Amino acid sequence: MVRSQAAAPLIDRMMTPADYSLSRPCPLGRISRFDYETTVAIVGFGAAGACAAIAAADAGARVMLFEAGSHSGGSIALEGGGGEIYLGGGGGSPQQRHAGFEDRTEDFHRYLLMAGGPDADEAKVRLYAGNALAHFDWLIAQGVEYTDAYVADHGLMPLNEECLGWTGSEEAWPFVQAARPAPRGHKPRHGGWNSGKYLMDVLTRQVHARGVDVRFGARALALIVDEDQRVHGLVVQADGKPCFVRASNGVILCTGGFIRNREMVQHHAPRLLRANRPIGALDDGSGIRLGMSVGASAIGMSEGFVTLPWYPPESLVRGILVNERGQRFINEDCYHGRVAQFILDQLGDRVWLLQDVETYAPGLLHESAGIGIAATCDSWEEVERKLDLPGGTLVATIDIYNRHAARGLDPLFHKTGRWLKPLDKPPFTVLDCSVDRAQYSAFTLGGLATLASGEVLTEDHEVIAGLFAAGRATCGLPRWGKGYSSGMSIADCTFFGRQAGQRAAT
Amino acid sequence: MVRSQAAAPLIDRMMTPADYSLSRPCPLGRISRFDYETTVAIVGFGAAGACAAIAAADAGARVMLFEAGSHSGGSIALEGGGGEIYLGGGGGSPQQRHAGFEDRTEDFHRYLLMAGGPDADEAKVRLYAGNALAHFDWLIAQGVEYTDAYVADHGLMPLNEECLGWTGSEEAWPFVQAARPAPRGHKPRHGGWNSGKYLMDVLTRQVHARGVDVRFGARALALIVDEDQRVHGLVVQADGKPCFVRASNGVILCTGGFIRNREMVQHHAPRLLRANRPIGALDDGSGIRLGMSVGASAIGMSEGFVTLPWYPPESLVRGILVNERGQRFINEDCYHGRVAQFILDQLGDRVWLLQDVETYAPGLLHESAGIGIAATCDSWEEVERKLDLPGGTLVATIDIYNRHAARGLDPLFHKTGRWLKPLDKPPFTVLDCSVDRAQYSAFTLGGLATLASGEVLTEDHEVIAGLFAAGRATCGLPRWGKGYSSGMSIADCTFFGRQAGQRAAT
Repeated sequence: MVRSQAAAPLIDRMMTPADYSLSRPCPLGRISRFDYETTVAIVGFGAAGACAAIAAADAGARVMLFEAGSHSGGSIALEGGGGEIYLGGGGGSPQQRHAGFEDRTEDFHRYLLMAGGPDADEAKVRLYAGNALAHFDWLIAQGVEYTDAYVADHGLMPLNEECLGWTGSEEAWPFVQAARPAPRGHKPRHGGWNSGKYLMDVLTRQVHARGVDVRFGARALALIVDEDQRVHGLVVQADGKPCFVRASNGVILCTGGFIRNREMVQHHAPRLLRANRPIGALDDGSGIRLGMSVGASAIGMSEGFVTLPWYPPESLVRGILVNERGQRFINEDCYHGRVAQFILDQLGDRVWLLQDVETYAPGLLHESAGIGIAATCDSWEEVERKLDLPGGTLVATIDIYNRHAARGLDPLFHKTGRWLKPLDKPPFTVLDCSVDRAQYSAFTLGGLATLASGEVLTEDHEVIAGLFAAGRATCGLPRWGKGYSSGMSIADCTFFGRQAGQRAAT
Repeated sequence: MVRSQAAAPLIDRMMTPADYSLSRPCPLGRISRFDYETTVAIVGFGAAGACAAIAAADAGARVMLFEAGSHSGGSIALEGGGGEIYLGGGGGSPQQRHAGFEDRTEDFHRYLLMAGGPDADEAKVRLYAGNALAHFDWLIAQGVEYTDAYVADHGLMPLNEECLGWTGSEEAWPFVQAARPAPRGHKPRHGGWNSGKYLMDVLTRQVHARGVDVRFGARALALIVDEDQRVHGLVVQADGKPCFVRASNGVILCTGGFIRNREMVQHHAPRLLRANRPIGALDDGSGIRLGMSVGASAIGMSEGFVTLPWYPPESLVRGILVNERGQRFINEDCYHGRVAQFILDQLGDRVWLLQDVETYAPGLLHESAGIGIAATCDSWEEVERKLDLPGGTLVATIDIYNRHAARGLDPLFHKTGRWLKPLDKPPFTVLDCSVDRAQYSAFTLGGLATLASGEVLTEDHEVIAGLFAAGRATCGLPRWGKGYSSGMSIADCTFFGRQAGQRAAT
């Protein structure tokens, strides 16, 4: 298989890792001997890598899995990682049906498509919408436990042993017009706030149980390609030395996004620089850079998930958000991630959440998110003055809002009736959600262009032989910050990780 | 130079152009014989390609220039292409000084940096700010003629033989706070509205005068690379057949942006899909795709220039723009390109320009831009009803605007005093600038990452040997839609085209 090339020098085995670059593939013809031979090589032991490994092993492949860190995990296992997966369709999961929701595949499909934004991937949406329940069964078969309990409150996610909750904008305009709403966030029974870690531990055990050859502390250095740009393996750093790995069927990149790579964020998604709390384990874009080095297309690179936990409790949703011109800018009953995108779109950093005495309650996560009380006043005129808003602006905004809310209407932003009430009972509480003060969390949504099978594409939509990717190293199911719903990334990582593993194995 | 590779088949000379792909480089080792040998090969005969060719030839290189079309031109020569170049600094061009503006390099530099947005290229800004006047002299030396006449009116650009005009947001907030304003758009004497074509004709003559070997109808098919990803030349389609071109010093990609490639726009800049009038000759992203095929990084891909000629006449700037919630959203004295970006950011498509009898005048380009009169009313209450705006919204907006404008203030958006007056003299005219009705023009600003020298970079900032790029195939001086000023793209194409030509030649 290794071509002899008289004129090309073979690679000096004493080369150091520093001689490699993620952006420069290593020519196959230069390699005289491989250190490892496997069928499938996977880079990154997060949720996508784990599911790819399980699926590839189950399809009969020899699998090696390389992880730069000292243990499995990835972003899913970070502190506070809820571990909920976004799923439904097929008439509903047992939890959805138990809670009285018949979730038709058609509605689930429509919601996912709308949530994907102007460049939604119809093929991935269709495959997932039709197979999400089977995928849920697969997760349960791996040993992930779920209860039947449903939480009707709009929170960030279920917090204890409950499973099912609202984690998107399903009931909010404009989504509610496109698809019949249903709660679709399914959180594992164990782990509470850190159930992502629990989910990952279950998957990790399954990887090991299948005899996958896992190497920790093994950083990818470069892809190995032939002159037709077919990928034959990769160079990894092990024990401080470059090792050559041949993967006869291909390499699967499961390395996460690039939120930890400030330069990449600046070049591709500078808007996310306004969010000051990156969510990501080792998300330095390494897999995306490896893919680009062999001509892969990276798409949707400017998009990201951004959020601020300004609710729960859900009573806060009955308040309104205004910018530094005293203007509202979004229906506040949208998912917090969508709301945060609109906050970032505002000209100027100042944004406030306004409450009256009937809607105000201390925010569950306000302290850790840096959301403080900016003022407590007896009239909106006083609030307007205290916030130094242009004269008359806030008072006009409140007047218009209250007048329509009294009739259960929001003709400006279409907030639904359930969340509308005039904000007219003093004292009024002003919460400071300013972009330069509160903690906005973010991760990236752009990445390698792939088929639903995980095969990586060039800009001209040609498959790069021997290269696969899954999870946030790709532009997947979630790819539009204004449509993101909690659990979509885990759905994407686990489901499309499996597709990539299976395809690479066969 | 051509390596013999026993195992690799040589390319069948009878292969058809369809066997190639811009996304797949052609291995050097497969080519048995080159059809052409040159020092520098340039792809694309627009402004960037012309300047690169002139500079490379002047530096003593043999130059071949390949153009897919049947004549030179590119986007600069399109109908309505004003041909103005954005320049200043050094105390001012003769035209600036003649009009009484001392334009310090420091101010020019600051404006360019701010206009570049959150990922401005400091190295390119510095180089251009310090050398723009010398570059202007170079253009004049090529035979481009300019008058001394200055147009003080804020229009789109000077229209007749005048040279100097305001083509940016120099006097508007927030730019005016960062840099002392000066008009910096310099339009050639000839050609009127189509002076871009005139400028291109002058440059074309200079290219031919230098004996550059120009091939028309010659479409690039693929780059030729060795296994170290060094670029050695390219495959072009000539007379329906692939031809192999060796360029000993390198290939310069001057192929323009990708606004004519709908799929690329959707994957990288879906926001621009809202603009329905693409500005671009053959801008199909071919050069960007060629660069990506050898591991080049493409950055800022979501950004574009968007505009709607809602002024001139400049009296219209004294009106206000509102969205479908009756809210203002921008200081209307900004450059039309910046204003259009904020229009696209609005939730919903409806946007109106509101005038009173003292500010209204028929728009010079309203008819061709699809801006129609939506209503003429005697009161703002009537306008609010006719536009079906939520009750009280527009009236409150007007009330706040007029109250502050009477005192020469705009505390909401910081429109400058010169453009402020209460809109209180009926009849009131409403002009429909809705995104789905008016004609929004757009071109892309993202492209290959390059050094100021034109050398193309990988995602890890390594130079790809033998590959250069300039103009809209790169992410250059202009890279932020909200900062774009007319003439910046021509500045970038001509100045950095020269840098690339010179570097490739030496």
